[in-house]
Amino acid sequence: MKLADISPVHFLWEVSDRVAVLRLNRPERKNPLTFESYAEMRDLFRDLVYADDVDVVVLASNGGNFCSGGDVHDIIGPLIGLPMKDLLAFTRMTGDLVKAMISCGKPVIAAVDGVAVGAGAILAMAADMRLATPEAKCAFLFTRVGLAGCDMGACAMLPRIIGQGRAAELLYTGRVMTAAEGERWGFWNALHDSADLEAEAMVLARRLAAGPTFAHGVTKTQLLQEWDMGLLAAIEAEAQAQAICMQTKDFERAYRAFVAKEKPVFAGD
Amino acid sequence: MKLADISPVHFLWEVSDRVAVLRLNRPERKNPLTFESYAEMRDLFRDLVYADDVDVVVLASNGGNFCSGGDVHDIIGPLIGLPMKDLLAFTRMTGDLVKAMISCGKPVIAAVDGVAVGAGAILAMAADMRLATPEAKCAFLFTRVGLAGCDMGACAMLPRIIGQGRAAELLYTGRVMTAAEGERWGFWNALHDSADLEAEAMVLARRLAAGPTFAHGVTKTQLLQEWDMGLLAAIEAEAQAQAICMQTKDFERAYRAFVAKEKPVFAGD
Amino acid sequence: MKLADISPVHFLWEVSDRVAVLRLNRPERKNPLTFESYAEMRDLFRDLVYADDVDVVVLASNGGNFCSGGDVHDIIGPLIGLPMKDLLAFTRMTGDLVKAMISCGKPVIAAVDGVAVGAGAILAMAADMRLATPEAKCAFLFTRVGLAGCDMGACAMLPRIIGQGRAAELLYTGRVMTAAEGERWGFWNALHDSADLEAEAMVLARRLAAGPTFAHGVTKTQLLQEWDMGLLAAIEAEAQAQAICMQTKDFERAYRAFVAKEKPVFAGD
Repeated sequence: MKLADISPVHFLWEVSDRVAVLRLNRPERKNPLTFESYAEMRDLFRDLVYADDVDVVVLASNGGNFCSGGDVHDIIGPLIGLPMKDLLAFTRMTGDLVKAMISCGKPVIAAVDGVAVGAGAILAMAADMRLATPEAKCAFLFTRVGLAGCDMGACAMLPRIIGQGRAAELLYTGRVMTAAEGERWGFWNALHDSADLEAEAMVLARRLAAGPTFAHGVTKTQLLQEWDMGLLAAIEAEAQAQAICMQTKDFERAYRAFVAKEKPVFAGD
Repeated sequence: MKLADISPVHFLWEVSDRVAVLRLNRPERKNPLTFESYAEMRDLFRDLVYADDVDVVVLASNGGNFCSGGDVHDIIGPLIGLPMKDLLAFTRMTGDLVKAMISCGKPVIAAVDGVAVGAGAILAMAADMRLATPEAKCAFLFTRVGLAGCDMGACAMLPRIIGQGRAAELLYTGRVMTAAEGERWGFWNALHDSADLEAEAMVLARRLAAGPTFAHGVTKTQLLQEWDMGLLAAIEAEAQAQAICMQTKDFERAYRAFVAKEKPVFAGD
Repeated sequence: MKLADISPVHFLWEVSDRVAVLRLNRPERKNPLTFESYAEMRDLFRDLVYADDVDVVVLASNGGNFCSGGDVHDIIGPLIGLPMKDLLAFTRMTGDLVKAMISCGKPVIAAVDGVAVGAGAILAMAADMRLATPEAKCAFLFTRVGLAGCDMGACAMLPRIIGQGRAAELLYTGRVMTAAEGERWGFWNALHDSADLEAEAMVLARRLAAGPTFAHGVTKTQLLQEWDMGLLAAIEAEAQAQAICMQTKDFERAYRAFVAKEKPVFAGD
């Protein structure tokens, strides 16, 4: 499947050198999500599993903000008073987006400037790595709209990223996590000035795209598979997964390059 | 069930504005636990599940200290030489207190001044959020009384709060974690001067009590449920849990308040 | 079984006061691993379970470096082009070393100076506690040799030590984690100057060897057992494990010493 040249309707999508940049596109409202953008992103990340022309995805900001979450008028309003069947269809769709992101087999990097709140914070959380600006404001604000902190996997994922105690505070109170806190706690991998953020994300993305991409897919799979595995079982699972990678040509390419004192050139097979 | 007006025998208990403050009450000995206080707290936290007049619990200090753990004379002495049946009855009772705390359905905030050691450190750990003073001394000192670091869930919970490596050191050595370390590692959510500690804890508690309390209970439940769940399963579990919350009136109240540009007033249903 | 006087072929091994110091011994090449040293270490850690003359193991550096990982010429070269059966036999052997380390029933302390990369980083990670020098360079560089980040348990263990986001970055990129980062993130328990590193590791090791060693073995067992246990089940598991420890003489020794206002002298039974 080819995804380099598609033109999604509900967000921007550019691919260069096997790196895709996805950005929501209602900057005047800080890029809220709608039913349609949720669904289209879910479908795109599901397709990424089979795409042979995209290796890394950057979730980027737009107009100084990342994502303001589910739109109050377009999403929250219509949900009020719906029957359970329809509510569950909605929450499952949002959860399916996260499932698709963590199952897509390619590294996902979030590059967050400005606001990343509600489902926007979740999108950042569901990426594999996260860069931000010193101005980034991240809030899991579900509790402030009358909901629980458990949204799209937050009660499972956030504690593993920043620790159970810090996660509990953010999820119960919905308060903003400052960029400095986020970096100190391990939510952001690094902070960069707004002018440099996207270039830095692209450096990281291109580095990964130039790497052993089949192996990167295995890394992504194992980070998910071993989430709730016993440790002894995880070690056996990695013995199998790494033995698979040892049969790739990229492994041999790295060895030949090392012997020849050259930089390896990986081809993803 | 009503818990605002009960008068426990083995600790202090005050309720105002749906926030309960629980404090041990032997300050001259830094508030050690006894068989009786363990059992009475266990029963209280079990009752909290059904209490409709308490929404948040603050575990507070008394006389400058939080809790010195199991009393050497009242608890450790009598345990020496007991048959296994009785030892297990004791360790299960202490574990049942933690089980009751994490299953009570209401946020629990520890406000720790001075000493929180042994089972006192466990009580702080078993709270959802933890505030402390710069003078707080926390030690999982079981190893120093000849026991293992695995007490009341410490080998499961402490690694998730501060990381596996730091937890291993504290549990093997029993050494004091300073307040500064604890804040840096994510054990303490924040440090406040002794004079401000309880007021700060009450601000946080009242904020949670004014929030969507039904949803807070769901957050607490999911933090426990998803502890050892696969990530894909956790996301489905949250889709169900959040859909339940979307049928509460608090969700609608928040939406109506937003549209009216007012602050939402939650009622917990 | 006695292990104090054995003379391993492929690494150095010294035992004093029930503390063993193990160090790889090809300092001129930064102590790479070979098929033989993997296998011999695996067998040694398996024997440690039954050893009654060693209580703590220090994995030490040699010539200013800890371990440079699998030797390119001795290991990576021979692996190229092997059939799956043989590749899996190799990855299982390396995984079995980690399994043996985490199952040996005695605390393991890594004392890392200089380079700890590839499988060398894994050996440090698989220790219970980790000390390092400000010059320590740790890299999970598997991706740079064309492999996945999932090696010998890294995708399971590293996220629990430093958090999921930081672990993902290190495992995807293979970049060096500086000593300062490692300390800040909880990978290193402490940093010490090169001249002091080993003495500090020995202080910690002797402290543990003088502790209640039977109970330390229970701590180690529970840290492994509870890895993927539900929290309520973990609390019951600890009730049982701690009740076992309450029947040791070390528990009584600590009580008697406390009453007599003396320092307890533990005997490990």
